Amino acid sequence: MAFNKRSKIKLLLESSKIGKNTTIMGWVRTKRGNKNVSFIAVNDGSTIQNYQVVADPNVISEEVLKRITTGACIKATGEVVASQGAGQDSELIAQKIEVLGEADADKYPLQPKKHSMEFLRENAHLRMRTNTFGAVFRVRHALAFAVHQYFNDKGFFYIHTPIITASDAEGAGETFRVSTLDMKNPPLTEDGAVDYTKDFFERETNLTVSGQLEGELAAMALAEIYTFGPTFRAENSNTTRHLAEFWMIEPEMAFYDAEDNQDLAEDFLKYIISYAMEHCKADLEFLDKRAAEENAKKPTNERTELGLLDRLRFVVDHDFERISYTEAIEILKNSKPNKKKKFSYIIDEWGADLQSEHERFLVEKHFKKPVILTDYPKDIKAFYMKQNDDGKTVAAMDILFPGIGEIVGGSQREENMEKLTTRMDEMGISQEELYWYLDTRRFGATPHSGFGLGFERMVQFVTGMGNIRDVIAFPRTPGNAEF
Amino acid sequence: MAFNKRSKIKLLLESSKIGKNTTIMGWVRTKRGNKNVSFIAVNDGSTIQNYQVVADPNVISEEVLKRITTGACIKATGEVVASQGAGQDSELIAQKIEVLGEADADKYPLQPKKHSMEFLRENAHLRMRTNTFGAVFRVRHALAFAVHQYFNDKGFFYIHTPIITASDAEGAGETFRVSTLDMKNPPLTEDGAVDYTKDFFERETNLTVSGQLEGELAAMALAEIYTFGPTFRAENSNTTRHLAEFWMIEPEMAFYDAEDNQDLAEDFLKYIISYAMEHCKADLEFLDKRAAEENAKKPTNERTELGLLDRLRFVVDHDFERISYTEAIEILKNSKPNKKKKFSYIIDEWGADLQSEHERFLVEKHFKKPVILTDYPKDIKAFYMKQNDDGKTVAAMDILFPGIGEIVGGSQREENMEKLTTRMDEMGISQEELYWYLDTRRFGATPHSGFGLGFERMVQFVTGMGNIRDVIAFPRTPGNAEF
Repeated sequence: MAFNKRSKIKLLLESSKIGKNTTIMGWVRTKRGNKNVSFIAVNDGSTIQNYQVVADPNVISEEVLKRITTGACIKATGEVVASQGAGQDSELIAQKIEVLGEADADKYPLQPKKHSMEFLRENAHLRMRTNTFGAVFRVRHALAFAVHQYFNDKGFFYIHTPIITASDAEGAGETFRVSTLDMKNPPLTEDGAVDYTKDFFERETNLTVSGQLEGELAAMALAEIYTFGPTFRAENSNTTRHLAEFWMIEPEMAFYDAEDNQDLAEDFLKYIISYAMEHCKADLEFLDKRAAEENAKKPTNERTELGLLDRLRFVVDHDFERISYTEAIEILKNSKPNKKKKFSYIIDEWGADLQSEHERFLVEKHFKKPVILTDYPKDIKAFYMKQNDDGKTVAAMDILFPGIGEIVGGSQREENMEKLTTRMDEMGISQEELYWYLDTRRFGATPHSGFGLGFERMVQFVTGMGNIRDVIAFPRTPGNAEF
Repeated sequence: MAFNKRSKIKLLLESSKIGKNTTIMGWVRTKRGNKNVSFIAVNDGSTIQNYQVVADPNVISEEVLKRITTGACIKATGEVVASQGAGQDSELIAQKIEVLGEADADKYPLQPKKHSMEFLRENAHLRMRTNTFGAVFRVRHALAFAVHQYFNDKGFFYIHTPIITASDAEGAGETFRVSTLDMKNPPLTEDGAVDYTKDFFERETNLTVSGQLEGELAAMALAEIYTFGPTFRAENSNTTRHLAEFWMIEPEMAFYDAEDNQDLAEDFLKYIISYAMEHCKADLEFLDKRAAEENAKKPTNERTELGLLDRLRFVVDHDFERISYTEAIEILKNSKPNKKKKFSYIIDEWGADLQSEHERFLVEKHFKKPVILTDYPKDIKAFYMKQNDDGKTVAAMDILFPGIGEIVGGSQREENMEKLTTRMDEMGISQEELYWYLDTRRFGATPHSGFGLGFERMVQFVTGMGNIRDVIAFPRTPGNAEF
């Protein structure tokens, strides 16, 4: 007989079942009470809100009640009644409670007290049972679904680009090698190099740093596509903003120029944030309070002015400011923190790469709205970006958000075969290896554009979590591949 | 100024724009005609249907018309008029045509003639521009979206489980090693082994073969979750059914027993197939015809009785038959092909692993409906499956489809700590390495279940493509990591 006959707590809270009998199942968050009554807060993961089960020791035996401790999993059946206390409309008067699985109070790590984020990271296999991480992963889900919903509604096609690849053409960073060769005694060529022709793929392969180039191939056939898959960087970065394994969303669109690309990116970002705000109200209210508490603990000069929900509204409610890199440099050069040498990196000439402090100044102080920075110097951008007529800039865009700086990077792509190959030669990128990429310029080329969004950066922005390791279930970082 | 002002062909065909002016952009499939008029079939990837552009040489110059060849990308503006010919309701009388990108007829590989599948695989960067592959990837998108839609509607949360992992606990197959160590001179320990503590993750790591174990961790907090991510097998299998890199969908649910699991899987499979049938009518009609042509070319004894659309309806319209492995063995033992020794593997006793020929016999000949086979011998199944009371079977299920055999494998999971650890010891699986998995049995255990669907197998089933390399954009197989 099917076992899963239960009311999900989220639905139970939304509907009025008062007077009816039902069953809930979930994990015990707390139990309190006295000799005459026990109040058991149960959470089933469907919502941040616990549901209160009221247990009368005349109905539920002492033997059962003793086994109901924080972390235990229970099945409770009884009548839904209007709640006496504040906080929720209804509660369950238990007629029967079954302990599905105990949680020994001496051993269960997640006791009802404040745990450090580091402790919870070490217990990532259990941390999703806390309020904070439950909220984070529900919001993460909502954002991921919103991505698919947005592009599907617009007629884009989801493409799975390869994870294992022989090309690191973009030169976007250090890569992980993928191999089945014997590490200790690899086959060697006559001149003593490792003979990758004997490897699984008969060539050297690594984990992808981006699906963009393959995404462009698909866009040159299906016109509007997006990827949403894992990407990898083997950089030894132990920061709150870097992961060795993270998920990227990369739309690529035939027939889009730089302006179309900006329009799409702005609309897309607003959509997914609005979606989360609409579908994760309770989780975001909780995270908003949490962020405010975290903020209050910081030294005054590190505190943010805007609360979490304020920051989300800030993005959704404003037209993004669109300015060129050249204009931004002028603004920064003449800015107070630059003149007073408050920036760590002083901006004194055109061509400088912008740091997070500059990006945040433009967004938070100068324009007070999200900013799309366009037309960067070609020397600080990738080979595939469309060269502008001025001969020194490319049709790139970076989108800058409050508190976080760059969240999206993209560009119109260079569709002109001669310009593209000249730039590849200048930058030492092999035309032969990328023959397939160049074929899309050889045959039926068209203006096209695309951008990339690091998914975990977006989850960080929407949840207000300070460390990127806390927005992915099982983070991979230098020295850490646990679980 | 924004460039992307066009009518998508799919929407143009659905709406009546007759008498209105519009612009389309896309790739030329064919051009035919005579001195007085040219008919240009344009495809923009939004649908399998081409749109006809009619070009009068008095309006469109000869110089432009000459550059319009198969594979070229064009922008055509003109008036939409009711079509004279059969096949579509309207066409575009060109007032202006701009060639966005040429395709030299002497060099462009995809000339309008029949290409072998092998040739198209070698040109995977261009093959999405053909009718067949355009259809396949639009159907693939629809199926992927349906997966997300289904689980989101049911309140499941999408979890990204790790791609790089230190555990190969399931023992599901050979893995790819992920490393940044110098292949030629790796650091060694004192006793001469490769010293993986010096590697990026400070331990030996590989690409995941399944997200299930991590998915279970999430289900023990959020109750109902699913994964949809890439998985890897380093097996040297050069078949039409195996990829080294493929995508898996793995739902895991707290509070589901074996029967709940079967109910969910059947409902899910019917949903995503129905979704594709509803949203990809034109593509599936094309693929149905294609499959019929392929079928007719086969020797009589290899032909399938059911056409592609018949097979899809076969699954959607029938309640799946649910029988135990033990019952299946009895049926097979007494079957005609077994008695007449027509099976390659004769079934003579309980405990035998079933081959594709047996699975297909059950589905296609005996029951004439999809079959859920349950309660397999524990010795041919994984350690984590729930042990039945008979002491010899586990609460596994395989779902069998016509033409393809097993498409889903799953089980109720063993939640009993003692039974689980005993089985791990018997099978030589380290309790220490999997401490985090065991913690979900130590703390707040509950009956739970899950299953796995190989996404490419499903795309093969729905598109009728014979080779799995033709349902993923850039397949990875032994010796092949091109693009």
